[in-house]
Parts: sequence; C-alpha cells; structure tokens
Amino acid sequence: MSDPATPTGADPLLLRRVLDGRHHVLREEIRLAHAAGWFTPRQHADDEAHRAWVAAAMHEVARTPHQLLGFPAGVGGGDDVGASVAAFEMLALGDLSLTVKAGVQWGLFGGAVQALGTQAHHERYLPSIMDFSLPGCFAMTESGHGSDVQGLRTTAVYDPAAQEFVVHTPDAGATKDYIGGAARDGRLAVVFAQLITGGQEHGVHALLVPVRDASGAPAPGVTIEDCGRKAGLAGVDNGRLRFDHVRVPREALLDRYAQVAPDGTYTSPVASPGRRFFTMIGALVRGRLSISGAALSATKVGLDVAVRHGQDRRQFTDPATGEEVRLLDHPSHRRRLLPAVARAYGWTFVQAGLVDRLQEAHAGRLDEAATRLLETDVAAVKAATTWEAARTLQTAREACGGAGYLTTSRLPELRADTDVFTTFEGDNTVLVQLVAKNLLTGYAAGARGRLGAVRTGVRSLLSRAGDRVRVPLRTDVLDPARQVALLTAREEHVLDGLARRLRAAVAGGATPAAAASAVQDHMQVLGRAHVDRLLVEALDERVRACPAGPTADLLARVRDLAVLSRLEEDMSWFLAHGRLGRSDAKAVTRHVDRLCTELRPDAVALVDAFGIDPSWSRRAAAVDADQELAA
Amino acid sequence: MSDPATPTGADPLLLRRVLDGRHHVLREEIRLAHAAGWFTPRQHADDEAHRAWVAAAMHEVARTPHQLLGFPAGVGGGDDVGASVAAFEMLALGDLSLTVKAGVQWGLFGGAVQALGTQAHHERYLPSIMDFSLPGCFAMTESGHGSDVQGLRTTAVYDPAAQEFVVHTPDAGATKDYIGGAARDGRLAVVFAQLITGGQEHGVHALLVPVRDASGAPAPGVTIEDCGRKAGLAGVDNGRLRFDHVRVPREALLDRYAQVAPDGTYTSPVASPGRRFFTMIGALVRGRLSISGAALSATKVGLDVAVRHGQDRRQFTDPATGEEVRLLDHPSHRRRLLPAVARAYGWTFVQAGLVDRLQEAHAGRLDEAATRLLETDVAAVKAATTWEAARTLQTAREACGGAGYLTTSRLPELRADTDVFTTFEGDNTVLVQLVAKNLLTGYAAGARGRLGAVRTGVRSLLSRAGDRVRVPLRTDVLDPARQVALLTAREEHVLDGLARRLRAAVAGGATPAAAASAVQDHMQVLGRAHVDRLLVEALDERVRACPAGPTADLLARVRDLAVLSRLEEDMSWFLAHGRLGRSDAKAVTRHVDRLCTELRPDAVALVDAFGIDPSWSRRAAAVDADQELAA
Repeated sequence: MSDPATPTGADPLLLRRVLDGRHHVLREEIRLAHAAGWFTPRQHADDEAHRAWVAAAMHEVARTPHQLLGFPAGVGGGDDVGASVAAFEMLALGDLSLTVKAGVQWGLFGGAVQALGTQAHHERYLPSIMDFSLPGCFAMTESGHGSDVQGLRTTAVYDPAAQEFVVHTPDAGATKDYIGGAARDGRLAVVFAQLITGGQEHGVHALLVPVRDASGAPAPGVTIEDCGRKAGLAGVDNGRLRFDHVRVPREALLDRYAQVAPDGTYTSPVASPGRRFFTMIGALVRGRLSISGAALSATKVGLDVAVRHGQDRRQFTDPATGEEVRLLDHPSHRRRLLPAVARAYGWTFVQAGLVDRLQEAHAGRLDEAATRLLETDVAAVKAATTWEAARTLQTAREACGGAGYLTTSRLPELRADTDVFTTFEGDNTVLVQLVAKNLLTGYAAGARGRLGAVRTGVRSLLSRAGDRVRVPLRTDVLDPARQVALLTAREEHVLDGLARRLRAAVAGGATPAAAASAVQDHMQVLGRAHVDRLLVEALDERVRACPAGPTADLLARVRDLAVLSRLEEDMSWFLAHGRLGRSDAKAVTRHVDRLCTELRPDAVALVDAFGIDPSWSRRAAAVDADQELAA
Repeated sequence: MSDPATPTGADPLLLRRVLDGRHHVLREEIRLAHAAGWFTPRQHADDEAHRAWVAAAMHEVARTPHQLLGFPAGVGGGDDVGASVAAFEMLALGDLSLTVKAGVQWGLFGGAVQALGTQAHHERYLPSIMDFSLPGCFAMTESGHGSDVQGLRTTAVYDPAAQEFVVHTPDAGATKDYIGGAARDGRLAVVFAQLITGGQEHGVHALLVPVRDASGAPAPGVTIEDCGRKAGLAGVDNGRLRFDHVRVPREALLDRYAQVAPDGTYTSPVASPGRRFFTMIGALVRGRLSISGAALSATKVGLDVAVRHGQDRRQFTDPATGEEVRLLDHPSHRRRLLPAVARAYGWTFVQAGLVDRLQEAHAGRLDEAATRLLETDVAAVKAATTWEAARTLQTAREACGGAGYLTTSRLPELRADTDVFTTFEGDNTVLVQLVAKNLLTGYAAGARGRLGAVRTGVRSLLSRAGDRVRVPLRTDVLDPARQVALLTAREEHVLDGLARRLRAAVAGGATPAAAASAVQDHMQVLGRAHVDRLLVEALDERVRACPAGPTADLLARVRDLAVLSRLEEDMSWFLAHGRLGRSDAKAVTRHVDRLCTELRPDAVALVDAFGIDPSWSRRAAAVDADQELAA
C-alpha cells in the first residue's frame, strides 16, 4: 500500500487487485517469475530459431507449477482449472508463440486427454504431457472441414480381430491441417475421426495416435508436412498430418463418453449422437476460454504500449503555452485509446466470471442447463475479446505512428500473433451463430425461463440501485441499472424477433436449415446483444463490489466509458428500435467525450494496473525532442 | 468482347473498362508486363534478400516507361502525371515493398526534385533518378516530429563566405527517422530543414544532401542507422539519418518557392511563411494520391483472394440437397465481403476523379481555390482508402480462415504491408483534421461559396434523376439523387455545427487553438461526411455514364450497396439528427441484405473485373474435399 495514489486519488494496488481478481496472488507470483526474464520477447534469427526457443522455453515453463494447476492432483496437478486459465492469461503477456504452444500442449492436447479420456489415459499420459517429455498435437481441423467439425472425414474403423482401430485419411480434404506441434515437435496426437465399428458410423470421436517416434521421424503410415510461414506465431510449428491405415490399439480411444468393447460393441452414456458430439466438444470449453484470456492479455500489452507512448510523446505546439502538447492531451487521441482501456477492464471482469463458472463446472456443481449456458457464454466472449484484440491492437499501432510499425514496439508482433485468434478455436462468425442457436434453443425449450431469470436479475439490480455511489451530472441513460435493463431488453427484443422470423419462415414452408440461413445476420446481432449484456452486468457487479472512495469513483467512470462507448457504437439499433431517443444519443456521445477527459489524468495509472513489467513490453521509442545527442 | 457474359448478363470487358477508366490501355499494357512474371510476389530468405531483390527489380521497372510517365518530357518522361499514378496503382497489385520503394524513388524523392526544384535540378538529377542510378531518400519525418512538419528541428544555416548551407541535426529528436532508402541504397536525400540565413529563420525548406558516396559508405558527417524489422514492407530499407554540420553548395536548395542569393538574401514569390510552407507541401499531393491508389490496389487483391475462396470452399451440408454449401452462399459470409467489393468500386471512381484533377493542376488549369480543394480531397480520400484497406484486408483474412493466416494466401503480407499506409504520408487522424480545417477555412472565407457549389450540383443531379434506369422495389432512400442530397446535407450540417461551436468557444474566451482542440471529434465526423459525399457522387456519376443494359444494372446495384452500406454504418448519425427515420433505417439494412443476395451470382465476375492476374495473387488454398489423395 506504499504506492502513491493516482492523480485523482485512487489506490493503484486496489485497482490491480480488482483486475487480478481471485487469482491475485498467483498472478503476482507469475509476474515475479516473468520479471526474471524468461518470457521477455526477443527477436529470432528465423522461424526455425523461434521454434527451437519456444520448445526450450516449454521445458522451463513446465518446471514451474503454474501452467499445470488444471491437471488432476492425482498426477501432480492442482485440480484447479480456474488457476490454470489465470496462469495462461499471465503467460500471454509474454511471447504469444510460447503461449499458443503451451495452450496446444496443456490446454488442447492435455486437456482432451483429461476431459475425454479416463483414469488409465490420465495415469499413462498426463505426467509426460505435463513435463513436455511427450509433446503432442490436437488434430481436429481438416483442410476441407474447419468450422463444420461434424463433417470431418478422417476415419477410425475398428478391427475386432486385431482389437485395433485403423485411422485413415481418405482424401486430401481430410488432411489434418494447421495442427500446432505437427511440423516439428509432436509425438502423439489426439485425432478426431469418424468412428466406425461393425460397419456402423458413430460420429466424431477422439483417439490417441502416435505421429513421430522417439527419434523424431514420422511414425509408420503418417505423412507430415509443414504449413510454412504464417502471418504470426512464427514459433509455433503448425503442420499437416495424413494417415495411411495407421493401426492403434483399442485403448487409444478416449473413452469417457463412448466405449468400444473388444468385440466391437459400441456403448455410450449419452444416447443421442448429436448430444454426444456436443458433450465431447463442450468438454473442451477451457481451451476457448483460454484463448479469450490470451486475447485480453495481448490487448492489455498493446494498450500499455500505446498509452505510455501517448503520455511521453509530444506533438504540435500549444500557442498559449509555447509547449508541445502530449498526444493524450489531444482529445481525438485519447478518444481512440481510453474507451478501449475501459472495455479491457470490462472484459477482464467478464472473463473472471466465466473462469469462476468453469471452476464450478469442473467441480460438478453446474447442472446441464448451466453447463450449456457456460459454453454459450464462453463462445460469445471468445468471439468478442478476440475481435476486440484485433481492433484495439490496430488502434494502438496507429496511435504510435511509425514507431508502432517497428517491431521494437512489440505492436506488429502482437497484432500478427493474435490475428488468428479470431478464426481458430472456433471461427468467430460461426461461434456467434452457435451462441444465437443455443439462446434460441433455450428460448424454445425453457418457456422463456432463461430470460425470466435475466428479468429477475434486472429487478434485483433495480432494487439495489439506490445503494450505489452517486456520481454527479448523471442523466437517466447513465444510470447503471437502466443500462443493464436497456441491454437486457435489447437481447430480449432481438431474440423474440429472431424466434418470430424463424417460426414464420418454417410456417411459410422453408426447411429449418433454409430458415436458419436466412436469419444469419440477425443471429450476429443477437450474439452481440448477448455479450454486451454480459459486459455491462460484469462491470456493474465488480464496480459495485469496490469499497466507496476514489478508487470506486475511478472504476465507476471506467464502467461508464466502457458501457457508453458500446452503446455509442450500436446507437443506430437503439434509435431505430425506439429504445433510445435522439437526445439520449447526443448525451451518450457527450458523456463519452467527458469521461475521456475525466479519465485522462489517470490514463497511465489505468494501464499500470494491468501489472505488465516493462521488460515484457518493449516500448515504442518515445524520443524526447530535448534530449541531447551523445557526442 | 469474346468473354462470356457474367451470370446476370453483364459484359466483363465493359466492367473492366469502367474500372480502368481513362488509363485502360496503359493498365492492360502493364498487366501484360506483369504477366511476364516480374512482379510475382515471392518469399525471400530474409529481409536482406528481400531488399536486394527489390533493388534489382527497381532497375527492371525503370527500363519500362510506365512509372516514369509523370516526369518532364524534357528529361525523358511523359509529362503525364495522371498516367504515372495509374501505373503506380498497377505496380501495387504486386510486391508492395517494390511499390513503396518505387514510390520513394520516383514519387517522393524524384517528385520533390521535380515539384520543388527548378530547371537546373531537373536536368542534373532527374535522368539518374529515373533510371535508378541515383537512389534517393525523402528525409522529412524526424523522430520527434512526424505529423507536425512545421516543427522539424534539422537546421540548414547559410554560410555566405563559403556559399554553402550547413545541414545539422541539433538533437536526437531531430534525427530523420523511418526514411525509406536510408538504410541500404540511398545516395542523395531531399532533406527538409529549418532554413536560416543571416540569423533569420525562414521555416522548413528542402535541400539535396548526399548521404552515401559511390562506394555505398556514409558521406562525411552523416550517421546512418537501420530502423530494423518492421510489421511489413520488409523489402524497404527504412533508416535514420543524422547530420553533423554537413556542408552542401548553395545550389542544393530546391528553390522553386524560395531562393537564397549568394550573399544570403532570402526571396520567395510567396510572401507569407505559412502559405509558403503549405504551397511546398501541397506540391507533394501526388505522393499522397499514389498511396491512396496503392491501398486500393491491395484491397482489390485481398478481395480477389477472399471472394474466390468463398466461391471455391464449401462448408456445412444443406440437408435439403445433401451437398456442402459454398461459403458465399452463406448469407453472413457474403455480407462480410460484398459491401467491401462494392465500396472498392466506389473508391476506384473517386480515385480516378482525383487523378483527373491532379492532371488538370499539373497542366496549370486549376485556380488556387480549386488546387486547395484538390489537396483537401486527396487528404480525405487517402485517409479513407487506407483505413478501408486495413479493415477490408482484415475481413478478407478472416473470411479465409486458417488458409488466410498462411503466407501462401498473400493476405498476411498485404495486411502487414499496407498497415503503415494509415500513418505515413500523413497520419490519417491528423489528415482528417486538416480536411476539416480546410473546409472550415473555405466556409469562413468563401461566404459559403464552396457549399453553394455543392448545392448547385445537387440541384442539377435532382433535375437529371428522371432520366436514370429505374430499378424496381426502390424506395425513397434508394434514390441516388436523394442519397447525394442526404450526404451533402450531412456535410453541411456538420460543417455548420462545427463553425458554430468554434465561434461560440472563441466568443467564450477560448484561444483559437483550445477551441480547435475541443472540436477534434467533430472534425473527424466532418472529414468522414466529406469523403462519403465524394464517394456517392463519384459512384453516381460513373454509373450514370454507363450505357443502359445488364452491365449498367449490375453497376447500379454495386453503387447502391456501396452507398447503403456506408449509410448503415453511420445510421446513428442520420437517426440522431432526424435525417432518416426508423423505417428508413430498417429499409437500408433490408436492402443491403437484398443487394448482397442479388450480387451473389456475379461475385466472381465483380473481382475478375479488377484484372488481377492469378500469378500475382497466390490464392488461399481451397482444397476440394472430394479430391483424391495422390498415391
């Protein structure tokens, strides 16, 4: 608590604690580990050197406990999935190739063995997965099928005589593609394939298939190709895998949700093939939430760089003072950056809430409906945070001018590395459609129970609104309870309209598929409406939890700026649907301007609270024009 | 005319001619030269290899006449500045490092010698600039001063005894930075410096300063540093230059707009230092327009890649047919791409109009007001097209999924190379403020003459509206004349409001600088309102010029989609200011949906018309899932 207060009197340590949330101590521990210099981003001679550095760093990371906290205690993990996501978020403040490599090894590959396998798989494989002595791959995507996972064409045919599965790539489109770890390091792959026993297809299942021997040579029947250069993530060895009738033992099937008996009899605790598929995919929700967290971390690093640059650099002389003006003192400059800072706070709170719910799910404390809703929310948030990362890092790059184009600013690498986040672990556009479908399903099935719950929440918020700290100059549209109600009402309105359109289309003779196709754009609106409600709810809840005082006042402004900047962006919807009036629209813009001005003095304190060590964010060189040349 | 008609019966050759405009033959010539394989993008071992390839290619490009058409006929050019910009646009369909290197050499360095120098400079330097035997630099930006060119600190002090200028870098912030050509190839630089004679400062002027000798070693007193790795444009050798009392002869001053006599007497045909500065900078308008054209070319290549990918790739089975659906047949997929295709048509027409006006200016046929307006419009359009490039290439990347992340798709390189376009040759945000300032100046000075002219234009459009081809189902908001009127009215409204706010602020005691600072965000709105009007006017004019028939019908839909997609994006403004009603807003969205569906069959034909040879756009690999594996 010895840190001096921020310019407006807020407590920097409290700010950081609010952002760090439940895992503050873990995060501080990892910050210390980071500060030792392991993860400082560095320039590599070429992609091969970068890959080699990442592989070496993986062994170092494996020697710390943080990334392995999500594995079962029985094999040396911590049984703490929430902590493992928090640790992953911290890792993502450093080199993103290392982060993604860790995500592939422990989140996707290890996570699949953990979530889809059973005790024997855990005991046999998890220890060597955890210490990286068994590097692996998560071989789901195929060249011809990315988003449509149910359409995968790789086959796993059971041969009862040999008690083996025959894994095969029937055509070029079934090549496993973009697979992290495939090109260089991977030994064992979790392969998603159409399972066939006794001539009957059972849909997509996951099996463990060796892809390289101990010497690093491709396993018999496996063809490996390097995907080559990518926009970013140069240190990740993405590759292609093809299987030519590769035989694996019956035990290779990850059999938590489906078993094949020695004679080939197929059994599953989940009767419906469709539901079985979604149960298996749903078990991988941690991977998607981890990507969301990583996108958020990269966003924070970019904002840290850009806000400090805006503070340090001066341009254009103020005739009144004769002094050059700091970039952040130009209103249009801070208008570009501060709403993004405020939203980064908001997404941090949303992410923390999802991590808590994931923890509940892992502890078996969520019922099926709550589990489905968690999957829906994670999909919605992953799309939102990764798009926000792409956009914010672009803004940050531009806000640093030419300096932001040099790799020394770290911004080019952040931008290029995170770009693929918008399409991997679920293409964002497809994910948002999934969100809308799930919400519609809940709507149809639950007799509006889902929105009923939301309504109750709004009512309770409204009843509590009287307790909150009052901020002066606030009009109606600035009342947090009304903001929550407004965004909830939008979600309801869009959901109602979508359901009505679908019913009308089907009544008019359209197939369900054609009807769904015709409303794809409304689905995108619904997905956004949903995630915006999550954003405003999380902001309101976390800010309200802060003890009254200058820090809470600062956070209230952050909340207002985050929410109002989103309202401003979607204002046409609120106006066109009569939810806000013309004077509200102008008030929103005016208040966004005002909040950017009021937050200006604390701009650096707000990014300080992200807790990013200077050694991990090589800064855009802000040359002091007054500095004398040496010699 | 032997090309088959497009699916809706439009004429592909006519489409291409409409897009190519006045320089159709020149563009076809360059397409043939391209097709020979010179400019096919290739992967380089490292940045050094890329730079070497670019330097070698420059000599090849110099042996064709196209890029040199803008130089004076007297030194072997074509006196045809419009053709030179068109040729530059074509070059930008290939490697963008080569394009930017050519832009530095012939557009900025050669262009400055041409525009700011006089006969003796032209005769002495232009021939060797044109054949690239004298590689050069355009040394304007400094580490501490980018956007604020008037604040540059490099000095050029005249020494009458020696009849020399002493060029000096007084501090680290005055280091010339991000200078293309500085790190490897440049021999001679146009250096922008504060000119001082007899102890008196005369503001920023340009001088020719040798930076390397014939052996490639830095010239005496010149320190050169490499800027190192950048986000993109790896083949451009950006560097830093520092001068330690470097002496150059009196003739080194580019003296078209200011002369220094042997005794140090300073004279200029432009009396006011401010106006002199803007006259000199204005003479460089060609460089900015070239960047706009290059951004547009890169946008087209990206759309070509993404639209073909959307046509070839299939994902998700339609239960009704049992067939997998082409990506472009998913409504949300074409909604992402087709409005960007339509706007690329629009910006092409805007760009062509500016090139024509530039040609008029070079021929001395524009008066001063028209010249200022050209500079304003070029600044506005450069900001718009480079932002559109960043956004469209990102959309194209995402629309190609993982394939779009691999460098084989060319999208990563396009995205990374064009990124800096938003901040070089004028930071976009600063440029838009310049646009607003110029419009305000015209407004204040011209007794609304500027908008009066616009109003006359609108009236004449309205009177001609009866002649146009009628498209069925069109409501009022779809009437092109009303669209032009709507966007003109918005520009007027914003300009009026801005002027009123400024007057009120100054009347209330604010300094002009403080008042201007307080309205920066309104200035951004004005800049966009202005450029949107240029977009709709250019679309309307070019589409109306097309002979009636299926091609004109197709172009009318393209115009509608371009305009309505912009209206949709800014709908909140129109609603909040009562310029459109709620039913209009919904109609706009509905019509954008409809137009995307109606243009779907011609999606590939629309990008075919860009005339991009397959060999210059390595395509996102669209693997046919039915294709059999070889062996």
